Amino acid sequence: MPSPPYTAAELAERFSLRLHGDGSVRILGVGTLAQAGPGQLAFLANPKYRHQLNATNAGVVVMRESDAEGYPGTALIASDPYTAFARLSALFEPLPSRPPGIHPSADIHPTVRVADDVHVAAFVSIGANSRIEAGAVIGPGCVIGEDCVVGAGSELVARVTLVTRVRLGQRVRIHPGAVLGADGFGLAMDAGRWIKVPQLGGVVVGDDCEIGANTAIDRGAIEDTVLEEDVRLDNLIQIGHNVRIGAHTAMAGCVAVAGSARIGRYCLIGGGAGITGHLEICDRVVITAMSLVTRSIREPGEYSSGTGLMDNRSWRKNAARFRQLDKMARQLRDQEN
Amino acid sequence: MPSPPYTAAELAERFSLRLHGDGSVRILGVGTLAQAGPGQLAFLANPKYRHQLNATNAGVVVMRESDAEGYPGTALIASDPYTAFARLSALFEPLPSRPPGIHPSADIHPTVRVADDVHVAAFVSIGANSRIEAGAVIGPGCVIGEDCVVGAGSELVARVTLVTRVRLGQRVRIHPGAVLGADGFGLAMDAGRWIKVPQLGGVVVGDDCEIGANTAIDRGAIEDTVLEEDVRLDNLIQIGHNVRIGAHTAMAGCVAVAGSARIGRYCLIGGGAGITGHLEICDRVVITAMSLVTRSIREPGEYSSGTGLMDNRSWRKNAARFRQLDKMARQLRDQEN
Amino acid sequence: MPSPPYTAAELAERFSLRLHGDGSVRILGVGTLAQAGPGQLAFLANPKYRHQLNATNAGVVVMRESDAEGYPGTALIASDPYTAFARLSALFEPLPSRPPGIHPSADIHPTVRVADDVHVAAFVSIGANSRIEAGAVIGPGCVIGEDCVVGAGSELVARVTLVTRVRLGQRVRIHPGAVLGADGFGLAMDAGRWIKVPQLGGVVVGDDCEIGANTAIDRGAIEDTVLEEDVRLDNLIQIGHNVRIGAHTAMAGCVAVAGSARIGRYCLIGGGAGITGHLEICDRVVITAMSLVTRSIREPGEYSSGTGLMDNRSWRKNAARFRQLDKMARQLRDQEN
Repeated sequence: MPSPPYTAAELAERFSLRLHGDGSVRILGVGTLAQAGPGQLAFLANPKYRHQLNATNAGVVVMRESDAEGYPGTALIASDPYTAFARLSALFEPLPSRPPGIHPSADIHPTVRVADDVHVAAFVSIGANSRIEAGAVIGPGCVIGEDCVVGAGSELVARVTLVTRVRLGQRVRIHPGAVLGADGFGLAMDAGRWIKVPQLGGVVVGDDCEIGANTAIDRGAIEDTVLEEDVRLDNLIQIGHNVRIGAHTAMAGCVAVAGSARIGRYCLIGGGAGITGHLEICDRVVITAMSLVTRSIREPGEYSSGTGLMDNRSWRKNAARFRQLDKMARQLRDQEN
Repeated sequence: MPSPPYTAAELAERFSLRLHGDGSVRILGVGTLAQAGPGQLAFLANPKYRHQLNATNAGVVVMRESDAEGYPGTALIASDPYTAFARLSALFEPLPSRPPGIHPSADIHPTVRVADDVHVAAFVSIGANSRIEAGAVIGPGCVIGEDCVVGAGSELVARVTLVTRVRLGQRVRIHPGAVLGADGFGLAMDAGRWIKVPQLGGVVVGDDCEIGANTAIDRGAIEDTVLEEDVRLDNLIQIGHNVRIGAHTAMAGCVAVAGSARIGRYCLIGGGAGITGHLEICDRVVITAMSLVTRSIREPGEYSSGTGLMDNRSWRKNAARFRQLDKMARQLRDQEN
Repeated sequence: MPSPPYTAAELAERFSLRLHGDGSVRILGVGTLAQAGPGQLAFLANPKYRHQLNATNAGVVVMRESDAEGYPGTALIASDPYTAFARLSALFEPLPSRPPGIHPSADIHPTVRVADDVHVAAFVSIGANSRIEAGAVIGPGCVIGEDCVVGAGSELVARVTLVTRVRLGQRVRIHPGAVLGADGFGLAMDAGRWIKVPQLGGVVVGDDCEIGANTAIDRGAIEDTVLEEDVRLDNLIQIGHNVRIGAHTAMAGCVAVAGSARIGRYCLIGGGAGITGHLEICDRVVITAMSLVTRSIREPGEYSSGTGLMDNRSWRKNAARFRQLDKMARQLRDQEN
């Protein structure tokens, strides 16, 4: 399948989806169920949007078997329409050209090993003893320090910094502004002044991880900070030194994880949540947005902290009472007795 | 008015303000009411600082009519002294020279259209099919990817990244480290592993928007992420994919807005606040600092969540009781009956 | 002491520590108490890890006198083992080579004064009237604007931006992605549109400060934003315009401080905490993680806000009651009477 348009029948065959309706419909791109036109592919995953199906002009809609009954248009039937759509829509993504080659402006230390088919863009700096493996893409303005590895097929989109001792696995994708391997925040107080605790560890990032824009992952103090495989971090996240994040865990934007926290596999951490240091979170834990975790979590499940949103006047009254809550509880207990 | 000093009378005339006192006072710069000297301009807007008027050495003070009665010094009378001061003080701002021209180190794809009077600084990279319009300033170390537009008179101060499909209106100002147009955080789980949902949309930024240092605005999944005109974002803000922010809305630092949230016009979002995805906030809503919005808001007004600050010992007691709050409420109800 | 290995006796002498056990043990690096091998130095500071002492294979352990009684291995005795370890481990840190010299790609305005022994890396831009003092290191991709000073022995690790009027003291260390001196967030509303309040101040950073990755410190509106000496800021922190931070104060990641807040000396601000503007915090205040400070604090001590983490089902019930808290308090008061 060289390039769009594709017919519905071609898409069905390629992605092993059942075709419902007219297979000759030609698709040039994607759209939302509400906005897509006749040449566009849309999807229906959330039942909340089912009513939009009646009015959609989409050429083809990816949907569940149960939603297709009686649908007069063309559909591709999937057990998980969102996942199927994710795969289908990749056909329509305009990928920028990143041909192999090293831009003449790049400043690469003579000890660096760069595989033949690597793309290194303008204004890239790579320090001593680092290694860039096959098919990697180093976008404009990236800085890679000493003793780093960029694994095969990984991409630093632009202006990414790997400070020192950062080892990326294969197919890792890092967005602009991210900083991996900066000094962990290690301080000791000595006679009224801070002294810096040297940060001798590194950062290890497993295969297929993705790291968002302006996210920071510090290197370890003695041992390494570790992301296992397929960890997905959104933008503006802070990962302290010696944190370990289990495989397939995802974090939304602005999460902060303090040093030496250990987070399990398949966890979902909501935006703006905080995790304090030196604790453990087991596998399959969900933390809702802006919750603060201060103790280890040993049971899978969903956890929250905070209060709900109120109009400010009500909130002021209730928040004032929060200061009296212990007193209220003791009064209530006295009345019970 | 070529350059300072200016007399009080000249300033009054230029900004259509009424002069109170001696118009021949010469002004070379600005200062605070508390610290300004005889050659400096200060302002009084907040009544809380009115007592400083008695002791000020400022050569000229911008103030309201009502504050000027009996003031023995020179004043410029304005109905909104802060806004008047904002305009006046621009006269004293030392603006760096950004003459038209392209630095020889800049790496610009041959398909890029750059207007004649644009300033492109050192170590700038611009990708295929992008366009830089009249009078724009692209500061050092900026990376502009494919299919971007920088509108007339806009400025990327330094080290800004526009990843792909980012269209800026006119007079947009973006501070260092900001990343616009990175992949939205779209993931689908497939047989125990994440797959990436292609992010095919872009980012549209209206005229006169300002975007702070290290802020990230992701591009849309299918449609665009949109900032209407005159939106003002402070530093370290996260804007998820397909968010829409209405005209004249301002957000303080460290706000996080999750994907597909729609925020109205003239909203004020306090620092560190969180807004979860797929909800709507109407016009003229104020969210106080570090509040979390998890449902749509349909009435203008001020909204809050959280608890007030306490000494840690009191807080521990009250927070412990928060865990029993539902039980307490039921006990209380039983006692009422 | 040219380079490792060092004997335990050599280390004891160099750092004025008492030697316990065999002084001929040779040390090549550092490790954790749990993982270190015979050629490695470890430390025991937290009594919680004392049990690991029985099983450790570390060649030398830094510990308190009281922990060394009966310890069969080699120990270095320190009253503060963590601080002693911090000093010792610096011997084993592989420091990258940053020899004096200016990379040929650097773009330096002719008015800039650069001391002889400064290191300026590739793709660095330095604007008019700035000054780089003796022994400073300017890493790859840094942008320094107009009227800045980098004090003697300071280091900008990589991709740091000093926008304008930023004066760094001596031995300041700034991590990648940090932005100092961007415009403060000063806005005035005028006839339904924002106008920008010029930011005429600068940023002053005292000696021995450290500033984390992707942290932003805005320049002042009229006067300067000030960090006194030995202030330590972690990653992704936002410091608004005209903030003043007292000497030896440390902040963990993702803290946000709004404009004109004044923070005392020796304060510890926990991760994700928020401090609103125009208030004062006295010396030696501890703010726990994700707490919000909205009023001045006049007494040293520890302060907190928020609620504890709960399983989501319990949290929903209790958070719902928080909305009724004022009503509950009034019911309770009525019952008391």
